[in-house]
Amino acid sequence: MSKSYEILSSLLEKTMALQTSLVLFEWDNETLAPEGAGSYTSRVIGALSEEYYRVMTGEEMGKAIADCEEDDSLSDVERAIVKGAKEAREELVCIPSNEYRENAQLIAEAARIWSKAKKEEDFDSFAPTLEKVIGFKKKFASYRKKEGQKLYDVILDEFEKGFNMELLDEFFSRLKEEIVPLLKDIKENGKTIDDSFLSGGYPEEKQREMAHYLAEYVGFDFTKGVLAESAHPFTTNLHNHDVRITTSYRDKMDNAMFSVIHEAGHGIYELGISDEITQTPVGQGTSMGMHESQSRFFENIIGRSQAFWTPLYEKLQELYPDKLNEISIEQFMDAVNKVEPSFIRTEADELTYNLHIMIRYEIEKMIMEEDVDLKKLPEIWADKYEEYLGVRPENPSEGILQDIHWSQGLIGYFPSYALGNAFGAQLYYHMRKEMDFDELLVNGKLDVIRDYLREHIHKFGKLKTSREILKDTTGEDFTPDYFIRYVKEKYCSLYELS
Amino acid sequence: MSKSYEILSSLLEKTMALQTSLVLFEWDNETLAPEGAGSYTSRVIGALSEEYYRVMTGEEMGKAIADCEEDDSLSDVERAIVKGAKEAREELVCIPSNEYRENAQLIAEAARIWSKAKKEEDFDSFAPTLEKVIGFKKKFASYRKKEGQKLYDVILDEFEKGFNMELLDEFFSRLKEEIVPLLKDIKENGKTIDDSFLSGGYPEEKQREMAHYLAEYVGFDFTKGVLAESAHPFTTNLHNHDVRITTSYRDKMDNAMFSVIHEAGHGIYELGISDEITQTPVGQGTSMGMHESQSRFFENIIGRSQAFWTPLYEKLQELYPDKLNEISIEQFMDAVNKVEPSFIRTEADELTYNLHIMIRYEIEKMIMEEDVDLKKLPEIWADKYEEYLGVRPENPSEGILQDIHWSQGLIGYFPSYALGNAFGAQLYYHMRKEMDFDELLVNGKLDVIRDYLREHIHKFGKLKTSREILKDTTGEDFTPDYFIRYVKEKYCSLYELS
Repeated sequence: MSKSYEILSSLLEKTMALQTSLVLFEWDNETLAPEGAGSYTSRVIGALSEEYYRVMTGEEMGKAIADCEEDDSLSDVERAIVKGAKEAREELVCIPSNEYRENAQLIAEAARIWSKAKKEEDFDSFAPTLEKVIGFKKKFASYRKKEGQKLYDVILDEFEKGFNMELLDEFFSRLKEEIVPLLKDIKENGKTIDDSFLSGGYPEEKQREMAHYLAEYVGFDFTKGVLAESAHPFTTNLHNHDVRITTSYRDKMDNAMFSVIHEAGHGIYELGISDEITQTPVGQGTSMGMHESQSRFFENIIGRSQAFWTPLYEKLQELYPDKLNEISIEQFMDAVNKVEPSFIRTEADELTYNLHIMIRYEIEKMIMEEDVDLKKLPEIWADKYEEYLGVRPENPSEGILQDIHWSQGLIGYFPSYALGNAFGAQLYYHMRKEMDFDELLVNGKLDVIRDYLREHIHKFGKLKTSREILKDTTGEDFTPDYFIRYVKEKYCSLYELS
Repeated sequence: MSKSYEILSSLLEKTMALQTSLVLFEWDNETLAPEGAGSYTSRVIGALSEEYYRVMTGEEMGKAIADCEEDDSLSDVERAIVKGAKEAREELVCIPSNEYRENAQLIAEAARIWSKAKKEEDFDSFAPTLEKVIGFKKKFASYRKKEGQKLYDVILDEFEKGFNMELLDEFFSRLKEEIVPLLKDIKENGKTIDDSFLSGGYPEEKQREMAHYLAEYVGFDFTKGVLAESAHPFTTNLHNHDVRITTSYRDKMDNAMFSVIHEAGHGIYELGISDEITQTPVGQGTSMGMHESQSRFFENIIGRSQAFWTPLYEKLQELYPDKLNEISIEQFMDAVNKVEPSFIRTEADELTYNLHIMIRYEIEKMIMEEDVDLKKLPEIWADKYEEYLGVRPENPSEGILQDIHWSQGLIGYFPSYALGNAFGAQLYYHMRKEMDFDELLVNGKLDVIRDYLREHIHKFGKLKTSREILKDTTGEDFTPDYFIRYVKEKYCSLYELS
């Protein structure tokens, strides 16, 4: 290891350790921490964040990065780590420290205000906070933007390198064009599917057993992983030897099953990062979109296929004999794939899911680029749901207030969910050329699929962008075509449409 | 706040945040972290510890402390915090950073080596590591020692300010004098107690319910607290609004009940620290001895008294009707107070417990002051058990290897366990003058007792030493007399001895 890289490494080790602590506090807060801990723990978190900011933006770090950039003896991976460090530093260093702290405090409070507003179905009490959050978002983006670049494009590129409004407009308009009529066709001409047997009478204890079984079955390694419970399912990773997922157990039994497969997909991604880069600035999944491509791939393309359930369905029936003994695997597959336009994104089926995302994308554009009057958002939201999904939320908690993201400053994050679905489909059709996908699932050989994903995607972490991964793996740049093909094939067959 | 104190505060905030992260990692490791996380998480912990050492020993901290010492405008509490910071710094600053790191790494490995040796009943494989640990312990003590001070006295004073071998020799010889004959008398002349009904057939789920109930009943505040499970019960605190206890559920039902009351006692102490000092160098229980005085007070003086169980025993019977319906409260009280010399300290009854501690104290003196040949320790250990307790361990896992402490460098820590019992008894006899203790317990008014402890002990944190607390509360300096009186009264009555 060169002298200059050694200095950088030791600084990065410190920043990564601070970040890992912050991740652990976040995990702890969502799963276990006592309610009353709040403000005192916030101070601890505040001090750790400040220290992270200080080291990251400090002159020492700046010099170490500059020295490494001039050092010809670095390996490719070392060079990529230097680049990752530089980018992470640039994102912070342009923000004055007082604004960084103010924003962090605002975000910490905003989640509480949002949560209260949601409970009370009162958007107006949240709007002023949202306005402040957006204010910081725009300000920070303006610090980072290149000559002539639009603010929303700055943000989109942060979440998904290489993506901007031009590309996303095209993507979403393709989706709208294809999915809205398909949805209409399903509702008007599709067969009727009964999914009532999925609800009621599924004891939590048995759901828990099944969730653990499924996580392990799809390949989530419990020697390096944990499955816990939290209000909303999520995945968190300390490093590639400690990845944690959560789920929650509901009245509708398929919720926990598919949420746990989804989170296991995220988890498998992080567990597959190579040892060489874990705990460095490039040691995590490359982007939110690629992350979602893996979780949705496991959840939907694998998890909601009959091939996947063929070796498992009997076990499910044995677990819940009263509920499922009379239900055939075909009926079960129909039920877990049923299309039903609804208000709540996180409960949406695979087809309508992207329409939820599209609505958020359209509103985010208005927020970032059109200075929309925030007071009008609930109405705008409801109109869009009516137009695309044919349902109109009756209160803001079913509508504009449903997601925590905006309160957290996560604007520009939603499109990744839709991109993930598209990435997944593109990878899927390519993989089908390389292996007998269904045959592998029927024989429970998920390790072959997993190994393929690890070799082509997971192990690289941020060494490649999502577009590079798609290109290198499938031979094509990103295209929404495969996702359109996927939903058409799947749902026309499921709903017996021509 | 004065300028100099403001600078110190901000440095301390950082060190406390780092320490709190380390505590959270420790908690997580004992309760939940996946097995495979080990070495990667160790690196994160290593980086955080190094950063703590760096800030604490840095010139900036030295100057801030010195400036504050010269600042006349500081309040008493601020002055105490400055003193606490100075002491914490002095403990570190005399150790060269490379030795600090080497020792930290050794300790991290030592626990694994100890654990393996214990499993394999092989002391020899642990001895070389123990020798290294002791080497560092002696070296560090030698850096800190004052002219003419003995090494073990340096260490004892760190754990329990104001205590040294002279005082402890006197204390333990009083215990030996009184307890060894009392134990003999009980075995020879005491009545026979049946405690067989405490084992077998107690479902874990019900034990868990009872453990939660008892923790809450004695006053552990679940809005600021958590009860989890771990191999060995312990208490950990992030700050006075987030305190966590664990227990484990065994075949013998009273284990979890009393361990949870014990840990709740520790927890109530930490929850009772005043807001003004939490997350500062004086914001924790004043010493291990005073901490144990509170946990053992709740566990034994309160928890193993018939007055405590009078309002609760019916509930216990309802929980386990098959086991307890035929057992009277008197039989139950006899059973949970049964005296039985045994090998394992953590399972020892209240009377023999201190003899276990005495043996460790005597061996620690040999280690620190007499350069004993470590190879002979298992034999020395066994001889002492035979002499004082009348039982001889057949292998080192029942003997010298049973406790993790020495592998962690915790030499000088054990005496606090015995001191805690003595502190507790001294406080107890004083409190009986101030309140009708048994009447309060019978009526479930534990809040009166708890408030008294909070006002006289808990809220002060490290603002007072254990000896100052005893003096201010009971009007007397530390004395073992009350503990001797307590065990004599309790066990002569229990075993119907004159």
